[in-house]
Amino acid sequence: MNASIAIQVLPKVMEQEETRRIVDEVIAYLASTGLHYVVGPFETTLEGDLEELLDIVKQCCRICVEAGAPSVMSYVKISYKPDGVWTIDDKTGKYQNR
Amino acid sequence: MNASIAIQVLPKVMEQEETRRIVDEVIAYLASTGLHYVVGPFETTLEGDLEELLDIVKQCCRICVEAGAPSVMSYVKISYKPDGVWTIDDKTGKYQNR
Amino acid sequence: MNASIAIQVLPKVMEQEETRRIVDEVIAYLASTGLHYVVGPFETTLEGDLEELLDIVKQCCRICVEAGAPSVMSYVKISYKPDGVWTIDDKTGKYQNR
Amino acid sequence: MNASIAIQVLPKVMEQEETRRIVDEVIAYLASTGLHYVVGPFETTLEGDLEELLDIVKQCCRICVEAGAPSVMSYVKISYKPDGVWTIDDKTGKYQNR
Repeated sequence: MNASIAIQVLPKVMEQEETRRIVDEVIAYLASTGLHYVVGPFETTLEGDLEELLDIVKQCCRICVEAGAPSVMSYVKISYKPDGVWTIDDKTGKYQNR
Repeated sequence: MNASIAIQVLPKVMEQEETRRIVDEVIAYLASTGLHYVVGPFETTLEGDLEELLDIVKQCCRICVEAGAPSVMSYVKISYKPDGVWTIDDKTGKYQNR
Repeated sequence: MNASIAIQVLPKVMEQEETRRIVDEVIAYLASTGLHYVVGPFETTLEGDLEELLDIVKQCCRICVEAGAPSVMSYVKISYKPDGVWTIDDKTGKYQNR
Repeated sequence: MNASIAIQVLPKVMEQEETRRIVDEVIAYLASTGLHYVVGPFETTLEGDLEELLDIVKQCCRICVEAGAPSVMSYVKISYKPDGVWTIDDKTGKYQNR
């Protein structure tokens, strides 16, 4: 694994429940990729290959518009380390199930 | 609760274990504030009052330098809604303990 | 100068011109601080003292709500280096007036 | 133009001049794409097509490693609006050449 990303999508809709509906669609898509993922309050993190992960980012943007938002702002963090990126579990394992 | 923030600190050090040591010090401080917090792979989220949370951000920057980093980059997301911000549990409750 | 920040405010409003109106109010406030600032397409950058800059961040969030947005998401980058932060002009001087 | 992005690369190197060298290589690459771009203190903004822009993000990550950084953190903002994104000049035109 050479990369991990964290993505937040902000679909341009006013109602909180509309935001929830669209964000849930994006998270369902992220789950369907089969990659290891962690849902956080402001972003969802995945790890894998840089190329694959950026295709996933592109798809997340499209899903928001297909789900009814006229536009979307996305905020993406990318950690890229060809010889092996710092994994999700290694970073946060000890903080889970507090 | 009128605000929630997510903060990532990147202390300017080379070794991953040095990064871990300093980030763990910041997380220990965040835990000591008594506010509800969630540690994620790229950021830790807290909720509370805007004024209090920004003081906490300031302290996080200082802790990194006191812990030995010559400088630090921090990335902060701030959600501010005076009549009550969308809470951590309401956003992510259903995604925990997958 | 021990810090520089870049802030983007996303007031929760639907119309682009409403977004423009509120963002312009924030930029007018930033200009009024007297600090050196640069307006970019997605964020405005200032440099100064960490304490002063985080108070400014707080005020930016409040201005958006006072200007009519029910809530606001803000994205803040903070560079903190007690013995002197990398300045705006040193970073981008050669790229201005291309 | 359906998208605009702002990218900050943080190559994992200690010296400021090494950071400058690598970031300048990335900016030279961004300039070579022929897209309209604006260099800011913490990020460079481009506008174009979502697909093309995310390929450019991928290339920026790779350039940092090819230029000698063992790893790189990148921070990307993506604005996506299929029927025409808010342009750089429309957002910031009046703030240039203050």
